[in-house]
Amino acid sequence: MADEIVIGSHADENDVYRFGKDLDIILLEFEDINISALKKLKQEGKTIICDPNELEIIQDKGKQKMLYKEHAIPTADFFLADDQKEIRKKNVPLPFVLKKRTQGYDGGGVKKINTLHDLSSAWDAPSVGEECIDIKKEYSLIVGRDQSGNTFRYPVVEQHFHNNAHLVHFLVAPIELKQQIQTQIDTIGDQVLNAFSTTGMWAIELFLDADEKVLVNEIAPRVHNSGHHTIEGSATSQFSQFIRLALGLPHGSTKTLTPTVTMNILGPEGKSGAYQAEGLSEVLKTEGIFLHLYGKKTTRPFRKLGHITTTGETTDDCWKKIRSAQQSLQIVVE
Amino acid sequence: MADEIVIGSHADENDVYRFGKDLDIILLEFEDINISALKKLKQEGKTIICDPNELEIIQDKGKQKMLYKEHAIPTADFFLADDQKEIRKKNVPLPFVLKKRTQGYDGGGVKKINTLHDLSSAWDAPSVGEECIDIKKEYSLIVGRDQSGNTFRYPVVEQHFHNNAHLVHFLVAPIELKQQIQTQIDTIGDQVLNAFSTTGMWAIELFLDADEKVLVNEIAPRVHNSGHHTIEGSATSQFSQFIRLALGLPHGSTKTLTPTVTMNILGPEGKSGAYQAEGLSEVLKTEGIFLHLYGKKTTRPFRKLGHITTTGETTDDCWKKIRSAQQSLQIVVE
Repeated sequence: MADEIVIGSHADENDVYRFGKDLDIILLEFEDINISALKKLKQEGKTIICDPNELEIIQDKGKQKMLYKEHAIPTADFFLADDQKEIRKKNVPLPFVLKKRTQGYDGGGVKKINTLHDLSSAWDAPSVGEECIDIKKEYSLIVGRDQSGNTFRYPVVEQHFHNNAHLVHFLVAPIELKQQIQTQIDTIGDQVLNAFSTTGMWAIELFLDADEKVLVNEIAPRVHNSGHHTIEGSATSQFSQFIRLALGLPHGSTKTLTPTVTMNILGPEGKSGAYQAEGLSEVLKTEGIFLHLYGKKTTRPFRKLGHITTTGETTDDCWKKIRSAQQSLQIVVE
Repeated sequence: MADEIVIGSHADENDVYRFGKDLDIILLEFEDINISALKKLKQEGKTIICDPNELEIIQDKGKQKMLYKEHAIPTADFFLADDQKEIRKKNVPLPFVLKKRTQGYDGGGVKKINTLHDLSSAWDAPSVGEECIDIKKEYSLIVGRDQSGNTFRYPVVEQHFHNNAHLVHFLVAPIELKQQIQTQIDTIGDQVLNAFSTTGMWAIELFLDADEKVLVNEIAPRVHNSGHHTIEGSATSQFSQFIRLALGLPHGSTKTLTPTVTMNILGPEGKSGAYQAEGLSEVLKTEGIFLHLYGKKTTRPFRKLGHITTTGETTDDCWKKIRSAQQSLQIVVE
């Protein structure tokens, strides 16, 4: 839909500044963007969502964790370390989850450390070490604030992670939650909106631990994979919502219109290159199946190539449809 | 969304051929396209929807009328004439509706002839003259056929025309019809699918006359203004449907998901030039209002600049929302 394209590196100050200098409004759909350039653009009066000062915190998993602590937002216990030497010196109990402070994406830069050998084979860079959580469920909550300061919240979705990839495979919305869990999540939503005081939209990824305590894993300040079901399932899709925020329009209703189950279409394990999506006729013959292919020309193992949302009378209906679609759809690497 | 753009005249054989020669699939969203070029492209094996031989009939309101006659499709009585002289010679009873056989669009090339003076001031070109119908209601029925030969039909919509322009102003779907009217429309749907035997989608514009007889006005072989409500209101939008047909996928469900009322956003009377759409914040603060602006840079009197679809529990709800949106939205010409 673009009138113009600017080619450059998202990490390069000059490139990012050149991208933004003649624009009025800049939306980000990826966190790892040069902050100095964004701050300069903000100073020049551009509307930037999310706000560069807040993005700077989110870009760094260490700063994110410290922000949670500051706002009493529940999260897994953690330590910060500049390198492997510092981690060894701390003598932290094993196992723990090691996360690169910056530039992790889609499961990259995250490693479970069971032994000191695991640590040696990991990166030697500033990292967060996190207590291992016995994860019972994973949820996502999307909250936001429009330019008039009015806030909104989508219903919680449950995320089902892929067994072999650190990636969401299925999303289920809406879900029924025990009152005490819903209350924890509601509080977290308020806390996050308090911690981030600008115009924006935040996808809060949550863990439910074995004691039914809800913990914040990470926050993404943008449209998010865990909101794709809102296209068909909500009165306002997350994409329309983001555009409303950008244009200074009132935020739209987050009401659920129908049960949905969403499946990410992931590139097959161990294969890279050009591919064909096959079985589409079979997939699309059932009512209430919405196919989204992102038009990526090549696949990599577990690359997100698209998603399918199913709608139905009940969540069970949706699951049946998605399982059947999953059977029929083949990503064939050439 | 295009990777490439070809600039030329849709009426020019070389331009249209050049546009299509390296494509596999060609969809039309406008009828008045050079037929020789399309036929040549079809011979070369391109998938073209609608089929050029059928488009040739539709392009010519005279041939359209003769096709209806051939298939016993009910339509207003008519005569054909090559010029004004021939019309005068026929001595047809006044009044009648004069329509240019080719190149009419959005109310252009249609004129009610009450007196011989009206005729003199009209065009002198091959035309259809039609009996004046006492129109009680106007409907539209969208039917189609996928590449496997399976047919589909969307629920009938009611069209409310603008008082001053020969243009649809509002669409209401779904509607309740008397059984005898529904039966007439069902039969027409079958007849049209019989008359057009290829892969395609046909929007059939219908009149209900004072005797509650349903007559076909015109057929458009493409996505159509009278199907815009399907984006929010139907299990498969007319746009997804057209893509399914093009790609050889099975047609999608035409089930109604919610009552809708759709309003075309028309350029104000007597004004042309650059414009701003104002009042959007007011329009968008209500739930179930979906704004579509087409991004046209300039307006002309009654130009279709976009549309708004409202969804709600009942058609009355939708009407309330659309009336309120109509009040709030201002097209301000600079």
